[in-house]
Amino acid sequence: MSLLVVGSVALDSVETPSGKRDEILGGSAVYFSTAASFTGENLRLVAVIGEDFPKAHVAELEGRGICCEGLQQVPGRTFRWAGRYDDLNEAVTLDTQLNVFEHFKPEFPPGYAQSRDVLLANIDPVLQGQVLDQIEEPRFVAMDTMNFWIEDIIPGKRQALLDVVSRVDMLFVNDTEAKLLSGEETVLASARKLIAMGPSAVVIKRGEYGALLFTSEGPFFCPAYPVETVVDPTGAGDSFAGGFMGHLSTCEEISEDALRTAAVVGSATASFVVEGFSIERMRTIDASHIQARVADFRRMARIPDA
Amino acid sequence: MSLLVVGSVALDSVETPSGKRDEILGGSAVYFSTAASFTGENLRLVAVIGEDFPKAHVAELEGRGICCEGLQQVPGRTFRWAGRYDDLNEAVTLDTQLNVFEHFKPEFPPGYAQSRDVLLANIDPVLQGQVLDQIEEPRFVAMDTMNFWIEDIIPGKRQALLDVVSRVDMLFVNDTEAKLLSGEETVLASARKLIAMGPSAVVIKRGEYGALLFTSEGPFFCPAYPVETVVDPTGAGDSFAGGFMGHLSTCEEISEDALRTAAVVGSATASFVVEGFSIERMRTIDASHIQARVADFRRMARIPDA
Repeated sequence: MSLLVVGSVALDSVETPSGKRDEILGGSAVYFSTAASFTGENLRLVAVIGEDFPKAHVAELEGRGICCEGLQQVPGRTFRWAGRYDDLNEAVTLDTQLNVFEHFKPEFPPGYAQSRDVLLANIDPVLQGQVLDQIEEPRFVAMDTMNFWIEDIIPGKRQALLDVVSRVDMLFVNDTEAKLLSGEETVLASARKLIAMGPSAVVIKRGEYGALLFTSEGPFFCPAYPVETVVDPTGAGDSFAGGFMGHLSTCEEISEDALRTAAVVGSATASFVVEGFSIERMRTIDASHIQARVADFRRMARIPDA
Repeated sequence: MSLLVVGSVALDSVETPSGKRDEILGGSAVYFSTAASFTGENLRLVAVIGEDFPKAHVAELEGRGICCEGLQQVPGRTFRWAGRYDDLNEAVTLDTQLNVFEHFKPEFPPGYAQSRDVLLANIDPVLQGQVLDQIEEPRFVAMDTMNFWIEDIIPGKRQALLDVVSRVDMLFVNDTEAKLLSGEETVLASARKLIAMGPSAVVIKRGEYGALLFTSEGPFFCPAYPVETVVDPTGAGDSFAGGFMGHLSTCEEISEDALRTAAVVGSATASFVVEGFSIERMRTIDASHIQARVADFRRMARIPDA
């Protein structure tokens, strides 16, 4: 088994009701691969960092068994994002500095092209397509995206996105993105429309309300773990996807049951990441903590027999 | 078995993206008792109407087996509410005319004081307390309320509300009300605090995201049925409570399983009412339709075994 992720590595400055942190480790590929590392094996990271990126962060990812050969270090500064959460459900972006991320060209070290499973995190859909072109025989490809590409703010990007969507097995989107991308008004109608666009599965993320997995067998309601205190919601969606794909990468068959369990594992994994800034909470847990919350989900979602 | 509801009967004028209706049958007690009538027996309605209330509406309720002896008709005009939904999750109130509801004094016809189960729908908490005083040996009492009383807009009403809360077995509230009433910020912390205020069970309604049932056994995530088109959300919460209490009134024991199944029946029942204005969709279904959606919930919420 092997799981490749292509996405961003960032230094984030974040303000939430719980506090403020400057230039902490972030980015979709970091959250994804960290989350996936609890269950997945042979994780490969493709992303870009600048000269200023702390070596300790790379060492930490490698210490989790994440191969960082695909993490290019190039002249310039690392991608930076600054945001504030007034409402824990939505970030207000204060500043975005693309820096080295602006001219990111995903490149594969030897062996990466043979990855079995792939997650295309939210990057330019043109790049997502180029990554997909390089994978020789992918078994299961999932992708994430965002409003910026869906709304065609740079003309042509929406079409590039639709092309990638038609080529992947699964799409991770949130409520709003699902409605924007499908043009439908309800979550169920959106999911049906998105399935018709190519993927065999769609996951619609709904923040504190959990996620909806939609396949040919219909919807599966995946709850969100009711955490007592959300310290920092940054990376929740990417960690959900990471836990999801990490579990799936260990399954021999991509069955309905495998997808449902993957969603629950993803939800349990994401519930930890929001309990701290950056990935700091993830440093305090192991796979058994995630499994304990998965067991809690079974109790909390149990509908008695008739 | 017997189930008493005390609440409002209204003539509503509603505007939603699906259309506009004037002076249609509404009110918490109407939605509640209609929803409860699919499963419950010996339903008793205590409410007030004016001289202008169409007789056909009373006949319809009676035709569903709902005893309307407690439905007082008094001089004056019936309670009227007018609202608009721009966002289907939240009503904007355009007009409220209390009319005969302003001086409503719940009175019990013979036999009502011996009701086994009770739902105190959202009315003045002082009246809710007076109703409760009159029930001889209630088995299970549930209540609903709203921001207006929680926020103590009329001084003293919040305290009256807290008194009633301490006397009931279950509380139905929505997300916002739960946080306002408990002073907590997360849904789970709110639920714990509300339980500590007296009830043995709390249901936190979350609109299109379902409901959270909280008991001494912890949380149960009850999903909302993913309806394709929401025509009019009015009465969804009252119909949820009606389906819930209707089912519970048929159970010999108020067990965790009975409460969970009641929540799922409530959610299934509410999913029909929003598919039409007023209670018009309820005229086209019977208990088998509700059971079919309950079966769907079992499929949609199933987490595979480890």
